[in-house]
Amino acid sequence: MVTVNQNYLKLPGSYLFSNIAKKVSAYKEANPESKDSVISLGIGDVTQPLAPAIIDALHKSVDEMAHAETFHGYAPDLGYEFLRSAIAKNDYQSRGCDISADEIFVSDGAKSDSGNIQEIFGLDNKVAVCDPVYPVYVDTNVMAGRTGLYNKERENFDGVIYMPCKEENGFLPEIPADEVPDLIYLCFPNNPTGGAITKAALQEWVDYANKNGCVIIYDAAYEAYISEEDVPHSIYECEGARTCAIELRSFSKNAGFTGVRLGFAVVPKELVRDGVELHSLWARRHGTKFNGAPYIVQRAGEAVYSPEGKAQLKEQIAYYMRNAKTILEGLSAAGFSVSGGKNAPYIWLKTPDQMTSWEFFDYLLEKAHIVGTPGSGFGAHGEGYFRLTAFGSYENTLEAIERIKNL
Amino acid sequence: MVTVNQNYLKLPGSYLFSNIAKKVSAYKEANPESKDSVISLGIGDVTQPLAPAIIDALHKSVDEMAHAETFHGYAPDLGYEFLRSAIAKNDYQSRGCDISADEIFVSDGAKSDSGNIQEIFGLDNKVAVCDPVYPVYVDTNVMAGRTGLYNKERENFDGVIYMPCKEENGFLPEIPADEVPDLIYLCFPNNPTGGAITKAALQEWVDYANKNGCVIIYDAAYEAYISEEDVPHSIYECEGARTCAIELRSFSKNAGFTGVRLGFAVVPKELVRDGVELHSLWARRHGTKFNGAPYIVQRAGEAVYSPEGKAQLKEQIAYYMRNAKTILEGLSAAGFSVSGGKNAPYIWLKTPDQMTSWEFFDYLLEKAHIVGTPGSGFGAHGEGYFRLTAFGSYENTLEAIERIKNL
Repeated sequence: MVTVNQNYLKLPGSYLFSNIAKKVSAYKEANPESKDSVISLGIGDVTQPLAPAIIDALHKSVDEMAHAETFHGYAPDLGYEFLRSAIAKNDYQSRGCDISADEIFVSDGAKSDSGNIQEIFGLDNKVAVCDPVYPVYVDTNVMAGRTGLYNKERENFDGVIYMPCKEENGFLPEIPADEVPDLIYLCFPNNPTGGAITKAALQEWVDYANKNGCVIIYDAAYEAYISEEDVPHSIYECEGARTCAIELRSFSKNAGFTGVRLGFAVVPKELVRDGVELHSLWARRHGTKFNGAPYIVQRAGEAVYSPEGKAQLKEQIAYYMRNAKTILEGLSAAGFSVSGGKNAPYIWLKTPDQMTSWEFFDYLLEKAHIVGTPGSGFGAHGEGYFRLTAFGSYENTLEAIERIKNL
Repeated sequence: MVTVNQNYLKLPGSYLFSNIAKKVSAYKEANPESKDSVISLGIGDVTQPLAPAIIDALHKSVDEMAHAETFHGYAPDLGYEFLRSAIAKNDYQSRGCDISADEIFVSDGAKSDSGNIQEIFGLDNKVAVCDPVYPVYVDTNVMAGRTGLYNKERENFDGVIYMPCKEENGFLPEIPADEVPDLIYLCFPNNPTGGAITKAALQEWVDYANKNGCVIIYDAAYEAYISEEDVPHSIYECEGARTCAIELRSFSKNAGFTGVRLGFAVVPKELVRDGVELHSLWARRHGTKFNGAPYIVQRAGEAVYSPEGKAQLKEQIAYYMRNAKTILEGLSAAGFSVSGGKNAPYIWLKTPDQMTSWEFFDYLLEKAHIVGTPGSGFGAHGEGYFRLTAFGSYENTLEAIERIKNL
């Protein structure tokens, strides 16, 4: 008699963004007149079209697929050499990070990677995450059985070390005082708070991990939005990161690939635990459970690193960062307490009048037809906060801020 | 201190097709004169270009991605409605199978699905597989910890029920006599043997599963190659399959998507175990660890079901099946014992002169510059067998058979 994975039943409700989508579409159905005026600054989905250099690369590679001589079947397990080299060179070597092409694993996106990476670790590892946090890190560890039950009172899971990111500590996690974790998930620039970490502060985490045999899963999906000098673009800018860190990257936010699907993981060959190279375990996982990102998508990824691609994407990011500035300054002028938005496309705001995050969600949706993301959806310490994204169109962003100001 | 997933260390060596690729490239490097003459009938990778209807759909959707008004970001969790409806209608309802669009989960391919599906089940489930078998089913259950150690003597894993597919039983599995399994992996038309099952025989498996509370994971990746009347295209042609079977499908072999990446799983809502709908568990997994197949790829998938797409792909499959016939008849005339190739693009042959599968692999590579797949790579009962695929070009297939005849 078949049994199901009981760990799944520990998860309360469905995935955060599925919930929001359902709530919004129920609202639209009940209020058909709102349909055209609802503005989403909720899910971190981009709205600008793909850059011309990327469109060209896609058309060109689609044409290749139309002829037997240039047709491409199964991709190499870990990604095409042309893309892995471009990544190693542009994202790492050009910044002085010692990462080679064969330490890059091309995937269909950072969500998959950040969900799957826990598989190569034992079930006895203790996980530490920021609170608030991108839900995928915790949920996938729950599904694997690496946590206890959901604690309704604390609104989080037993057996997980939560590192509060609050106003008092500038929304940055502190090294756990009571217990040494094994797997530490860090995301900088941060989703959802939009906070960034300095190189000096990140170096402390790297030193701590090396000293204690931890592994840091470093999610750098938003690195393209960094505007300040002392904020590292990669954890490998820190000394010693090759022996303690896996880095996850995405093309979703720097190149608008949310609907194109491309990402990569970096697993340095020096990263060894239990006498085993994690590189070989991840390669085994990749080779067994994944069959490569599409050829045309990998060619599109390559175009991100072309001179034209780089120039076009620099503009695209500037476009979104103008939105971030608009939100940050507009809400600040309206009297909201806001942070983030300087090195990240996310603005983290304190809900007014002691509203809970979901109360403010309903309030904004009903009164201003604006969709944001309730901070409590990211963890107990997100309660009383709210996330807005800079990924809307400039016109919608302006309009949304006007509406909020006029509330 | 971080520990690794020790289950990974139970796996002997790397994934079969990675091994073969390495072996072939080492041979080519050592024998540069062979470089242009090596013909691969090994890995099941297609060689014909994408059909014009699919190329058109790709170009058109790439153009949509170039404009903000028609740009597509994150796809709906479980796939676009246009694709899920086309699948439900064309692959199921038109064959009288009671499957609705919301029971279809669009993915990046059947390899991912067949590797990931085990996650929603408890670790205490006993797995049954054919022997020989597509390696992903067993390897992913090993990685999850659902098996014992690798038994070197038996050349398979402790704790797994292997169902021998031998000459004596027409290369078809028999219901296990000694023990009732929980999860039963079946693949028809079969990879690697190319064998097919009749509807009456499949009905026996469905009845057995319903009687014993088993779940059948039915891999129908090769259904497009079925040429005989009494061979079912879907397990849902059998009565009662909605309460015991999950079906996995691929666009790789019916439409040449090996490098495009698209597949789907069907999880009927009536499939309940431990009081839980498996549909809801798989939806949770999909929503948490996956971010949808690319929009352009889903549009390409939709084109597979257009009148032009259907007509073009019918020709493509006829092209490959002519290869299968060429191999089957050529080898048979040359005195080989062969099977498969009638409802599947695979031909299963007995190695001559008592050679082991890998001996025959080396022999063919060295003497004829032909790459096939050693049967033993698919399991202990594959020893002494060899798989050839019909996915080469017609010219290469003819040439390969000539070379084998002349050995």
